[in-house]
This record gives sequence, C-alpha cells and structure tokens, in this order.
Amino acid sequence: MSRLCVHTITTKHWSTEECIKRYAAADVGGITFWRYNLEGRDAAAVGRHARETGLDVVSLCRGGFFPSATAEGRQKALDDNRRCIEEAHELEAPLIVLVCGAVPGQSLEESRKQIADGIAAVLPDAEAAGVKLGIEPLHPMYADDRSAVNTMRQANDICDELGSPEMLGIAADVYHIWWDPELKHQIELTAAQKRLFAFHICDWKTPTADLLNDRGLMGEGCIPIRQISDWVDATGFKGYREVEIFSNLYWSMDQGEWLSKIKEAYGKVYV
Amino acid sequence: MSRLCVHTITTKHWSTEECIKRYAAADVGGITFWRYNLEGRDAAAVGRHARETGLDVVSLCRGGFFPSATAEGRQKALDDNRRCIEEAHELEAPLIVLVCGAVPGQSLEESRKQIADGIAAVLPDAEAAGVKLGIEPLHPMYADDRSAVNTMRQANDICDELGSPEMLGIAADVYHIWWDPELKHQIELTAAQKRLFAFHICDWKTPTADLLNDRGLMGEGCIPIRQISDWVDATGFKGYREVEIFSNLYWSMDQGEWLSKIKEAYGKVYV
Repeated sequence: MSRLCVHTITTKHWSTEECIKRYAAADVGGITFWRYNLEGRDAAAVGRHARETGLDVVSLCRGGFFPSATAEGRQKALDDNRRCIEEAHELEAPLIVLVCGAVPGQSLEESRKQIADGIAAVLPDAEAAGVKLGIEPLHPMYADDRSAVNTMRQANDICDELGSPEMLGIAADVYHIWWDPELKHQIELTAAQKRLFAFHICDWKTPTADLLNDRGLMGEGCIPIRQISDWVDATGFKGYREVEIFSNLYWSMDQGEWLSKIKEAYGKVYV
Repeated sequence: MSRLCVHTITTKHWSTEECIKRYAAADVGGITFWRYNLEGRDAAAVGRHARETGLDVVSLCRGGFFPSATAEGRQKALDDNRRCIEEAHELEAPLIVLVCGAVPGQSLEESRKQIADGIAAVLPDAEAAGVKLGIEPLHPMYADDRSAVNTMRQANDICDELGSPEMLGIAADVYHIWWDPELKHQIELTAAQKRLFAFHICDWKTPTADLLNDRGLMGEGCIPIRQISDWVDATGFKGYREVEIFSNLYWSMDQGEWLSKIKEAYGKVYV
C-alpha cells in the first residue's frame, strides 16, 4: 500500500479531518486534497496534520478552467489559479492538478489557445512557490464545458510549446485516456522530460449510467489499469497511484467500508 | 432541403411506412433505414416504396460489431454482416454504416485487429453486391462495448491498411468526432481516395444527461456543425447531411412536430 494515495473527493462525505484520520488508520500512503478541504481552514495546519499522521500530501485538486468568453473571466481564472498556488504552497503540496476548462459555444481552438496562455501566465507564480502544475487531459466527453485538452498528445504538445519548463507536466488519469490508440507512445514521450507528475486510477463501467459520477472501482470495468500503470512506471515514474472515484453509488455507501473495498481492489491490481 | 436526409431511428416511434410517407411529405431528400425497418418486410419493396415517393435511399444502419471473445462469435458477426449486405443490396441502399464493435474486457488492441480482419473478410461480399462499407468512428465514450474505432485517424488507417479499396470508406458523425484536435486534417486526408461516404449531424448538449440517448438538435449544443460540414464538402463530398438523433426527450414528442423542428434547425445551419 506504500504507493496508494486517495483523493478526498473519493470519500466526499468525510470532512477534511476525517479523511486524514481514516486514511492514516488504513495505512494509505498519500492524500490528495481538493480545494473544498481547505475552506475555512488554515492550509498549512491541514498539511502539517496530514504529515504528522504519516500521510504524504501528494497534490491539490484543482486549478485550471482558464478559458472564458471575456477578458474579465480569463483574468478571474488567473487570479483564482494564483490563489490555488498559494494554497498549495501553504499546504506544502508539491503539485496542482489542472482541469483546463472549456466554454460551450467557444471554439475548441480558441479554448486551447486560452489554456496555453493561461498556463504560461501563472507558471512563474508556480515556479516561485515551488509548486508543480500537472495538465490533466480529460476524456473527450468533457470537451464541452470541462476541458478542451482531451488527449495525452495535447498535454505533451502544450508542455513542448511552453518550452518544457521543469515545473510543468502531466497528470494522467486512466479514466480519461484508456481508449486512446496512441496512449503507450504518448506516455513514453513523457520520459525524456520526466514530465509525468501524477497517475490517477479508477475504472470504466459498462454501462456507465452518468457522465460524471459513475466511475468504477479498479477491477470492475474494462480499463487495463495494470498495463497502463506499467507503461507509466517504465518512464521512471515512482509516484503514487491515486484513487480518484466520483460515484453516486459509492458515495452512498458507508465510507469506511468503501475505503476497505478500495484497498482490496488496489491490492488485486498491484499483487 | 435537397441534401437533408433523416435516419429512421430519429423518429423511432414511426413505422417504416410512416417514416417514408412523412419524410416525403416534408420534402426531405433522403432516408437512411435502420435494419429493424426491414423486419418482416420485403427489403426490395421498402426501397421501391421510398424511391416512388421521391426519397433517395442513402444508407442502411448498421453492420459491424466484429469483435468477439470467441471464434464462434466472430463467425456469427461475419454471417450477420453478410446478411446485412444482402439486405442493402435488395433495398438498393448504396452504403452500409459500420459500428465496428468492442468487447468489455478484451483489449482494444485485439478488438481493433478483429475489426480490420472482419472488414477484410466481408469486403469481397460487399464489392460483389455493389454495396459500400462506411466505417463510423464512435466517440471514445463508446470504446467499452460499441466501437474500438474512436477517431477519424483510426478509420483512415484501417482503409489504408486494407489497401484503400474503392468500396471501403468512412461515415463521419459530428457527435463522435467534433472534439478531435486533428479533425480537420483527418477529414482532408479522405479527399485523395474519395473515401468520405457519409456525413451525420446532430449536436452535443451541455449537460448531456445520458451517454446514449440525449443527443441534441442542431444548434442547441456546442458542435461547430457548419464548420465541420464545410471541411467535409471541401473534400469533394456532395452527399446528404444525415440527421441521426437518439433522444429520449425528442422521442417523447409528437413526431410530426419533431420533424418540423429538425427541418427548421437544419435550415438555420445551412442558410
């Protein structure tokens, strides 16, 4: 379990404090906080609390959402990303995951340009704060309003376009990228710059009842998680396997039992 | 309206005969039949009836579903595709749309191989019958159990791999491919071999409530339909714009009113 990390959204009915206590008690290695975990709290204290219980703070979810139809909207996004960088710095989270954003009705081409511009604008702040930014390609079914970055190739291209700065890389989530015919190749391409910063796991259920909140537990779907994970590790990646599962079904369970199921499923993938 | 075609599934509560009568009365130019339209009927007579009312028979939906975990299953798929080719021949439909298939738990790599093998196996039958086969790339959200062919690039690659035979091409549906960063380029690549055989339109709604049956009417979503359509026409494509909309919402409407809405929406895209 030393490389198992859980995203707090996976057990979203637990408070920040309960996530920390329960994950630590379950011998989970790392925790990825979501920004709602910090609301009304001292981010530095939250990070300290997690580390004192033995948990690594893996990342902060999520920055991004750069595109907007108005200059004012784009400026608000930059301001919010800078706040997110401050929070990650206080939390001592080494990484922010970027869900890049998209605006229904604005061309994907324009949104993609605004995303690259937005990342370029906040990158100096991230570098100054010692916080990495990980572009998360999102499944094409989210291209309307969540992210115009939908493939590993696009994420690699943005990193290249911005000169492949050390603090900019990719957060790869199997749910979003498993279908891609050039997935293996694009994962391999991350190796030279060591730009694969994070690896998220869950599964794709057949049928999937909801576009957002019906992700599967590892092993109950069709994603070749172990194979993709091995490709990722072959790039030199030694980080956590982060369980990030949005699921109305599992959120309605007793969250302690749910965490036990996650550990069991994780153990079966990584025997 | 001379290039407007409607798929019978779009008005699925109408019988085969009612679709023909209503589309013709509405001055729709073409009709694409689904195989259920032919059940218990003489395909040749259905085709004749449609043409007598002034409708072009544009295509038959759908063949494909080649992959299977067993050799027996793959043979059954070939048999069924051959029956589909016979039906299209009797109907005098010039084209069969292929939804290529996928098997949850079988690797996409294996399914993709089985798809190319399956198409190669039935292609001689299609050629003998004078029926074209159009590979329809399906949205990546259907990679689990509907199609392992999820991009225009893959469809182009299969055509190339099989020697680019004249009777094999692509059915492009905006719903499945609109998000693709290399869409324009891949559409352009179809020009040399004139392999773009069909063009399907609808829209992507935000939010989308159901992965299968919540497609939008042209203009109510975020797909740049006219732009993609212009790219398609620039390849030399002169065929129909086929309206194929699966929608629990619109299926629950009075289907006559629904057809009027389709015509109105079509007219706004193609002013």
